[in-house]
Amino acid sequence: MIRVAILGASGYTARELLNLLTRHPEVEITTLTTRQDSRLHVADVHPALRGRLDLVLENLPLEEVAKRADCVFGCLPHGASAAAVSELLAAGCRVVDFSADYRLNDPKVYTQWYGVEHPDPARMPETVYGLPELYRDSIRGADLVANPGCYPTATVLALAPLLKQGVISPQGLVIDAKSGVSGAGRSPKPSLHFPEANENFSAYNIGGHRHTPEIDQVLSSWAEVETQVVFSPHLVPMDRGMLITAYGETTKEITTEGLIEVLKQFYADEPFVRVVDHLPGTKDVVQTNFCDITARRVGSKAVVVSTIDNLLKGASGAAVQNFNLMYDLPESLALL
Amino acid sequence: MIRVAILGASGYTARELLNLLTRHPEVEITTLTTRQDSRLHVADVHPALRGRLDLVLENLPLEEVAKRADCVFGCLPHGASAAAVSELLAAGCRVVDFSADYRLNDPKVYTQWYGVEHPDPARMPETVYGLPELYRDSIRGADLVANPGCYPTATVLALAPLLKQGVISPQGLVIDAKSGVSGAGRSPKPSLHFPEANENFSAYNIGGHRHTPEIDQVLSSWAEVETQVVFSPHLVPMDRGMLITAYGETTKEITTEGLIEVLKQFYADEPFVRVVDHLPGTKDVVQTNFCDITARRVGSKAVVVSTIDNLLKGASGAAVQNFNLMYDLPESLALL
Amino acid sequence: MIRVAILGASGYTARELLNLLTRHPEVEITTLTTRQDSRLHVADVHPALRGRLDLVLENLPLEEVAKRADCVFGCLPHGASAAAVSELLAAGCRVVDFSADYRLNDPKVYTQWYGVEHPDPARMPETVYGLPELYRDSIRGADLVANPGCYPTATVLALAPLLKQGVISPQGLVIDAKSGVSGAGRSPKPSLHFPEANENFSAYNIGGHRHTPEIDQVLSSWAEVETQVVFSPHLVPMDRGMLITAYGETTKEITTEGLIEVLKQFYADEPFVRVVDHLPGTKDVVQTNFCDITARRVGSKAVVVSTIDNLLKGASGAAVQNFNLMYDLPESLALL
Amino acid sequence: MIRVAILGASGYTARELLNLLTRHPEVEITTLTTRQDSRLHVADVHPALRGRLDLVLENLPLEEVAKRADCVFGCLPHGASAAAVSELLAAGCRVVDFSADYRLNDPKVYTQWYGVEHPDPARMPETVYGLPELYRDSIRGADLVANPGCYPTATVLALAPLLKQGVISPQGLVIDAKSGVSGAGRSPKPSLHFPEANENFSAYNIGGHRHTPEIDQVLSSWAEVETQVVFSPHLVPMDRGMLITAYGETTKEITTEGLIEVLKQFYADEPFVRVVDHLPGTKDVVQTNFCDITARRVGSKAVVVSTIDNLLKGASGAAVQNFNLMYDLPESLALL
Repeated sequence: MIRVAILGASGYTARELLNLLTRHPEVEITTLTTRQDSRLHVADVHPALRGRLDLVLENLPLEEVAKRADCVFGCLPHGASAAAVSELLAAGCRVVDFSADYRLNDPKVYTQWYGVEHPDPARMPETVYGLPELYRDSIRGADLVANPGCYPTATVLALAPLLKQGVISPQGLVIDAKSGVSGAGRSPKPSLHFPEANENFSAYNIGGHRHTPEIDQVLSSWAEVETQVVFSPHLVPMDRGMLITAYGETTKEITTEGLIEVLKQFYADEPFVRVVDHLPGTKDVVQTNFCDITARRVGSKAVVVSTIDNLLKGASGAAVQNFNLMYDLPESLALL
Repeated sequence: MIRVAILGASGYTARELLNLLTRHPEVEITTLTTRQDSRLHVADVHPALRGRLDLVLENLPLEEVAKRADCVFGCLPHGASAAAVSELLAAGCRVVDFSADYRLNDPKVYTQWYGVEHPDPARMPETVYGLPELYRDSIRGADLVANPGCYPTATVLALAPLLKQGVISPQGLVIDAKSGVSGAGRSPKPSLHFPEANENFSAYNIGGHRHTPEIDQVLSSWAEVETQVVFSPHLVPMDRGMLITAYGETTKEITTEGLIEVLKQFYADEPFVRVVDHLPGTKDVVQTNFCDITARRVGSKAVVVSTIDNLLKGASGAAVQNFNLMYDLPESLALL
Repeated sequence: MIRVAILGASGYTARELLNLLTRHPEVEITTLTTRQDSRLHVADVHPALRGRLDLVLENLPLEEVAKRADCVFGCLPHGASAAAVSELLAAGCRVVDFSADYRLNDPKVYTQWYGVEHPDPARMPETVYGLPELYRDSIRGADLVANPGCYPTATVLALAPLLKQGVISPQGLVIDAKSGVSGAGRSPKPSLHFPEANENFSAYNIGGHRHTPEIDQVLSSWAEVETQVVFSPHLVPMDRGMLITAYGETTKEITTEGLIEVLKQFYADEPFVRVVDHLPGTKDVVQTNFCDITARRVGSKAVVVSTIDNLLKGASGAAVQNFNLMYDLPESLALL
Repeated sequence: MIRVAILGASGYTARELLNLLTRHPEVEITTLTTRQDSRLHVADVHPALRGRLDLVLENLPLEEVAKRADCVFGCLPHGASAAAVSELLAAGCRVVDFSADYRLNDPKVYTQWYGVEHPDPARMPETVYGLPELYRDSIRGADLVANPGCYPTATVLALAPLLKQGVISPQGLVIDAKSGVSGAGRSPKPSLHFPEANENFSAYNIGGHRHTPEIDQVLSSWAEVETQVVFSPHLVPMDRGMLITAYGETTKEITTEGLIEVLKQFYADEPFVRVVDHLPGTKDVVQTNFCDITARRVGSKAVVVSTIDNLLKGASGAAVQNFNLMYDLPESLALL
C-alpha cells in the first residue's frame, strides 16, 4: 500500500481527491493537513465522507507529514505550495502539486502573473507537466508532477493535435471558456453568494486570467509553435463542469469531418479522451475523468469544443491519473 | 409627492423596495442610508437599478434623514431598528419598519427570542402589525407599521381564516416551511456559498426560528385561540419564493372543497390573495405581490399550502401595500 | 462472475445502476433491454457511460434475457414489470424489481392505488421488501426482492425505530417530503420543462401519492402498529436528493438527545445509515448510498429529518445492496 | 387607449408582453389568440397573471382580430406569421412581428436558412428592423416592425458602433453566445427536461443557427461593411438572460478605454443601453429592458461583452419600445 497525505484538505479538490482515493486499492490515506489550528474531523469538513474515512485534519509540520506518507498531494495556494514541495522532496516524498507553482517553466513569467518571486525557481524548468496525453512518458517515475490547471487541460487537449498537425494557425487563437462555480474555490465571496451567482452568467478576468500563460507555454512548447491566446473565462451557475469553445484560423481546406478525424487519430488509444461527433455538454463528463471533444468548420475557422469536470479531469482525477503513472499502476485505477 | 428614505439600502429587501418605489407615481425617493462610511452609488450596489435612480448611499445622522423624508422605510437589523424608529417618529416621520422590533407585543417574548432587551418596549403593544388582510383598518393612517416577517405572512394567511371559523384545531399545528436563499440575506456565509447551497435542500433551525413567536402571537390574538405551532424552516436552492405546508387537525367533517370555500369567502375582496383549486408553486407568485393558497383534506387533517415571493408579499411588496394604506392611496398602486 | 441484465435500461435509475455495476467486481453486465424497436448504443442513451460500457439496448424476448443473465434488474413500469418477473423467475433467474408491483402485500390495495388488477397476486404477500435495515435476513438468498420506493425508504428509516420503541404515536403522523426532479423520471412533461421547474418549488399529489400505502404497510407490519400517514410530496428545483421531515406525537417525556439516541442505537451497525446531531442537507448524501437522519423534540412532537439520494439509496444503490445480500457478497461492494 | 391583440399568446414572449402591457397606461388588451381549439383562461396558461387580466385565449379568425385591435403583436412561428401579418395589415392593423419572417431582406437567404418559400417576399426589403438604437426614425410611424431576434440584438448592439467607426475589422468576427433556457421556447423536449438541462452547459447549432444571417445582414447594411460572423450559441442552466462575447481584430492602436469610449459616445442618449466599465453579468439586466455592454483590448483583439434579458430587450421589451415609437408615445413607457 502506498501511504498518502493531502496538504490543505478542506477545499473542493481535496474532497474529490479523497472520494477517489478511498476507492483506490493501492492507497492508504494516512494524513490530512490544514493550516488552521483547530483539529476538525474530515466528516465535519466534508459531510459526504462521514462513515467512509476516519481521519482528523491537523496542522502538522512537514517533517511529520514526510514520516507518514510516501506520496503527498499538495492542495495549497501558490507560493505556499512551492515552499512545502521542496522540503517534502528533500525528505524523500513524491509529490503531485495542484498549485500553479511548478506548471510554468520561466520564473519571470511566474512573477509577472502571480506577482511574487518564485521560492524555488531552479526546479521550475525541469518539472514535468502532468498532462498524460502529452507527457505520459515523463510522468512515469517522476518524483514531482505539476498537476495542470483546469482551463489549460480543457484547452490544450482541444488544440494541441490541430496545432501539431498544422491544420490551424497558432496566431489569433481565441478561447472562450465557461466554468461551474466550484472552480472558484470554497471561500465565500460576495459575488459567489448563492443569490448573486445563481441564475447569473458572467464574464470575469478577460485577458487577465493566470491560466493564460500556462496555456501558451504548453501549446507552444509541445506543438513547437508560438501562440498568444486570447482567453476569456466565464462563470456558469452550476456546481461543476467546464466547457471551452476555441476558435482557430484553418490553414488549409479541411472539413468538419477532417478536423474530427485528426482528433480521433490523436486520441485513439487514450483512456480518458472521447472524441465525439455531436456537440457535447458538461453533463456528459461531470463526475467522470473524461474529456469530450468535437470540432466544427465554420467559415474559415475551426471551432473546437472541449468539456471536462473541472474538479476531476481538471484537478483531482488528473492527479490520480498522474499518481497511477508515477507508481506504474494501471492508469485508470480508481478512475472508471 | 411623498418624500421617502430607506435606511440600510444595500440588502435585497431594499433593492426590491427601490424597484417598486421607482415606479410609484406618488413617491420621490430622496435618501438612501448605509452604516458603512464609504459613499456608494446605488448603481454600484444594485446594478439592475443603473440608469433608473441617481442616488448615493450615505452614512447620515437620523436628523438629516428626517429633514429629507416624510416616510422612512427601515431595513435595519433588529435592535438597531428600534433605536432609529423612535427618533424618526419623534422628528415627525412616518415609518414602515422591516425589522422584527415592533412585530411582537411582549418585551419578554422579544428578549427570550432575540436575546437582548428591547430599547423601546412601551411602543411594542400599540404598534400595528402590517398584514392588511387582518389589520387593514388599523394600518390606515398609522404612523408606524411593523412590516411582517415572510414566514408569518405565508403562514398566517393560510391558517387565520380556518382557525377563526373553528374548522381546524389550534392545538398541534405543524408548519413545514420552505424558502429561497434570498431570505437569508445578502451577507456571504459558508453555507450560502453557491457550491454549498446549490443543488442542496436542507432543514435549519427547526423549533428555534424567530418567526415562531410571531406566528403564534398573530394567530392567537387575531383568531382568539391559543396556538403553539411547530415551525420547521427549510432552504430551497432557488433565489426567491417561499411555500409553506401547514397541517391542522380538523374539528368537524369538512371536505377539501369546504376548506377551499372558507378561504375563498374570507379572501373574496382581497387584491393580493388568490385562493386556487390546484396545488400552487412558488413560480406562480414570484416577482408579484400575490399570495396563492389552497387546501386539502387528508385523513383527519387539513393540509394548507400557501406561497408568496418572500421579497415582495413577504417584505417589500407588503411594505408598499402598507405605505399605500397609511397615505390613503389606492392599495395596489405600484404593485400590479 | 454473475451475469446481469437490466430491463428498461434507458431511464435514470438504470443509468445509476449501470454506473454502480460497471464498478462491481463480481458482475458482468451482459444485456440491456428497451421496449422500443430501435437499437441504441448505451453511450447514446447515457453519454456519461461512453467508453465505459460497450452494449446495445435491444428489444429482446424474455427467454433470451433469461439465457444471458443470472440476475435481472427490472426497471419497467408497474404492471409490465410483474408480467416479466414471473416469467423470469420461472426461467431460473433471480430478480431485483424496481417497480411497485411486489412492494404491496395486498392485491386490493394495489388495485385501489394503481387502478389495475395485479397480474401475479399470489406472489405479492410472500415477496421480501428490499429494505436491508429491516429485512436483511429475508433478503439473503431471496430469488425475488421488491426494491423499495424512494419516499418509503427515507420515511421508514426515519420512523421505524421510534415507532417500534413506542416513543412516538402511530396516529397522526405527517410526512412532508421533498424530492429532486429526477424522481419524476426521464419523460419530458410541461411541468418538468426546465423553465417551468427551475427556480420553482411546488407541492404535488398531496394525499394521493402511491407511496402512501407502501409507507403505511411497511411501518405497520414491521413496527406492529397501525399507521395512516398524511403524505405530502413536493418538487425541489435540483437534480437529485430527497429529504423528508416527519412529525409524530411523542408518547412520553423524551428530549432531542433521547430521540437521537434511539436512532443511534438502532442503526449502530448499519453500513449506510448515519445518525447525525446536526440538521442534514441532501448534498451530504447525494452521489452516495447513505441515509442521514436526525431528530428534534419541538413542543410535544418529534420532528425527524431524513435524507437520501433518491436515485441511489432510494433506488439503484439499494438494489445493489440487495443484490449483494442475495448473492452473499459483502454488503457494501461497489457502494462505497 | 390603443386596443391590442396578441397572436399566439401561450408562450414565454407572450407572457412577458402581457406582463408589460397590463402596466401600460395607453393600452387596452382586448384579444389573445391560440391555434388550439380549447378555450383557456389566460390565468390557466400564465398563472402569474391570475387576478391581473381576465381574458380567454381563443382560436379566432384574423378578421375578428382585426375588428378588435388597432395593433397586433404577432408571436407566431415563422411562416405562419407572414401569412397572418399581410392579412392584418390589409385590414388596417399595425403589427409588431416577433417572428423571423420580416427580419431578413432577401427571400433567397430566407429560403436557404428557413427551408421554405417566403409567403410575402415583396414586403421583406421594405420592412423596418425594430432595433431603435439603429433605426429609430424608421420605426416611428411604421405600420409593420420586425422585432429583432435576441442574439442579433445583443450582438449588433455590441459591434455596430465599433464597425461603423472602423476600429475593428469586419472580417473574422467571432460571436460566442450564451442563453438561458427560456430562449428555446415553452415546448417540452428531451434535452430541455429539467434533469437534462439543469447543471449542464452545452453548445448547440454552432455555425448553423438561424440568427447568423440576421446578424450579418444588420451589421453589414447598417455599418456599410461586409461581415460573415462565426456564431456559436450555448445553453446556460438558468431561466433567462443572455450574454455574448464578441471577438474582432482591431484595425488600429486602441486601448480598452478607447473601445469603451466609442461605445459610450454612441449610446450616450440611449435610454436602454448602459455602457459600463466592469464585466457585466446577466443578472444585472434580467427583468429589465436594458442592454449592458463593455469592451476589453486583449492582444490585437477587441473583446466586447453584451448582456440582455432575452425575453425583454431580446423580445417583448423591445416590442413595447417599438410600439411606443410607432405610436409616438414616450419611448420608455411601461419599460422602467
